[in-house]
Amino acid sequence: MNIGLDVMGGDFAPQNTVAGALLALSEISREDCIVLIGKEELIAAELAKNNANPSLFKIVNATQVIEMSDKPLKAFQEKTNSSLSVGFRMLKSNDIDTIASAGNSGALGAGAMQSVHNIPGIIRPCAATTLARENGGYNLLLDIGATTDVKPDVMAQFGLIGSIYAQALLKIEHPRVCLLNIGTEDTKGNLQCQTAFRLMQDNKAYNFIGNLEPRSIFSNEADVFVTDGFVGNILLKQIETFYHLMVKRNYKDSFITNFNYELHGGSPILGVNAPVVLGHGISTPLAIKNMILLSKRMVDTHMTEKLKQAFSQYADNF
Amino acid sequence: MNIGLDVMGGDFAPQNTVAGALLALSEISREDCIVLIGKEELIAAELAKNNANPSLFKIVNATQVIEMSDKPLKAFQEKTNSSLSVGFRMLKSNDIDTIASAGNSGALGAGAMQSVHNIPGIIRPCAATTLARENGGYNLLLDIGATTDVKPDVMAQFGLIGSIYAQALLKIEHPRVCLLNIGTEDTKGNLQCQTAFRLMQDNKAYNFIGNLEPRSIFSNEADVFVTDGFVGNILLKQIETFYHLMVKRNYKDSFITNFNYELHGGSPILGVNAPVVLGHGISTPLAIKNMILLSKRMVDTHMTEKLKQAFSQYADNF
Repeated sequence: MNIGLDVMGGDFAPQNTVAGALLALSEISREDCIVLIGKEELIAAELAKNNANPSLFKIVNATQVIEMSDKPLKAFQEKTNSSLSVGFRMLKSNDIDTIASAGNSGALGAGAMQSVHNIPGIIRPCAATTLARENGGYNLLLDIGATTDVKPDVMAQFGLIGSIYAQALLKIEHPRVCLLNIGTEDTKGNLQCQTAFRLMQDNKAYNFIGNLEPRSIFSNEADVFVTDGFVGNILLKQIETFYHLMVKRNYKDSFITNFNYELHGGSPILGVNAPVVLGHGISTPLAIKNMILLSKRMVDTHMTEKLKQAFSQYADNF
Repeated sequence: MNIGLDVMGGDFAPQNTVAGALLALSEISREDCIVLIGKEELIAAELAKNNANPSLFKIVNATQVIEMSDKPLKAFQEKTNSSLSVGFRMLKSNDIDTIASAGNSGALGAGAMQSVHNIPGIIRPCAATTLARENGGYNLLLDIGATTDVKPDVMAQFGLIGSIYAQALLKIEHPRVCLLNIGTEDTKGNLQCQTAFRLMQDNKAYNFIGNLEPRSIFSNEADVFVTDGFVGNILLKQIETFYHLMVKRNYKDSFITNFNYELHGGSPILGVNAPVVLGHGISTPLAIKNMILLSKRMVDTHMTEKLKQAFSQYADNF
């Protein structure tokens, strides 16, 4: 497997990306290759700093960089020699099997849609994250920011995307899918949630169990929490805020530690025709390592094929 | 001052409401009277259980109860002898100066709008809460659920409502008003936030400082955080969830303790022509006490008059 890494993506690139790639090496097999995509002289310098042999990786030169402040689509289209543009061309031509980036998230999303395109039937892709349960195991939350404005039919599709992802990643046979809402009664929420609820309730493509409130996201009441990218992103950032509050207080336990984004590494962009993983802009080497491992897991679990199969099978449900 | 209390409102009414009213007595002056509105035989029984003299209160009989599961507007209009309906008639006729209820929040909102109506110029009322800052002091968050579907012009008004409330309650002369968003750049967020941002930026009625992310809500970067009632309610419920997580872990510090809803007692419904305070359905006696004290504070600080004056002065800004 060839795992593409956008070496230039992230607030602390290329230092943290190269350091993270080195960390990841010890957790992947020799058949798997990490492909470092970026400015080759900077990659070489970082490898030298770490006393690492360049032959541990495949290195692909890309002379341009998409900055965090660049307008996503414009940057992706105009900076044709950027690490992201080069990476997506390689992904499209199967020179790499997956790509991961902690860079400009909008550009990553735009690049995915422009190069490998949405899976047939999927209106909008979404980004998912795992949330540790208080008593062990994980829930899924999606969308956490791939799409900030969605219509209820898109949210209904997120239910199936989440269900397939929970089957593949969490090994849950019949994932319980809920709608994140401000009350548990069927008619609760804003108009968007009320309509999404009805679409999800009528949909037989997955196991919809109704509305749940934020207090349930760390419990074993559902497996998949569906929300729109704006609310999901607000919620995730709030969880991170809480983690940092507790770190400042030197409070540690294994559950609270799970709120550390570094352990998750990133979020897959689910719904495009190849595995794409988005990392946090502030990614540390540990986060980059976990982002690379998550990329690998997306390939290993055949997530793209599973989503294609599901949206083909349930084409009439949406 | 006459402070009306909906004795029948709340999951643990009338036990907790009467117990809370008794707790509040020691913190208000003899000139202030708590008016207990509800089924008089139940009120008498609760007072007897607490060995309390009925003459400590004014008791107003109301033979019906609006249940938590009742449809708000319908219940308010049809149950004309419910504690809430009786209470709002008294509020309208100035027999009480303020009303507080931990009951059906939709019915409280509907009752407020049907009886005392919105302040001229205010499109939709909102509910506000204080959030303790890590380093002392408080921020305001609004709307936390009075209105789940709002247009950007309503959010722009929340900015002025929050600014006036911060001046009155937090004694901040020029409150910094921000828009809660998923990024700090001017163009971030969903379409609603993008439009609200432009309206708020152009508005000279208050001091708008731009977008802030959830990580800033416990900091001293702004005084007022504006969001819609759906997102605000999700966020508040998430904060409560953290509080309960930490209580379970026996973790205590003065900052985390501030996440306890009981200390806040409730949220004022800002934007109607009289002080109305909404409490949490699960209110304990401590929460009820603080809800009563918050009601009193709404009257003492002349919040209604200040909002009227502001929306009259800045009528052309909206």
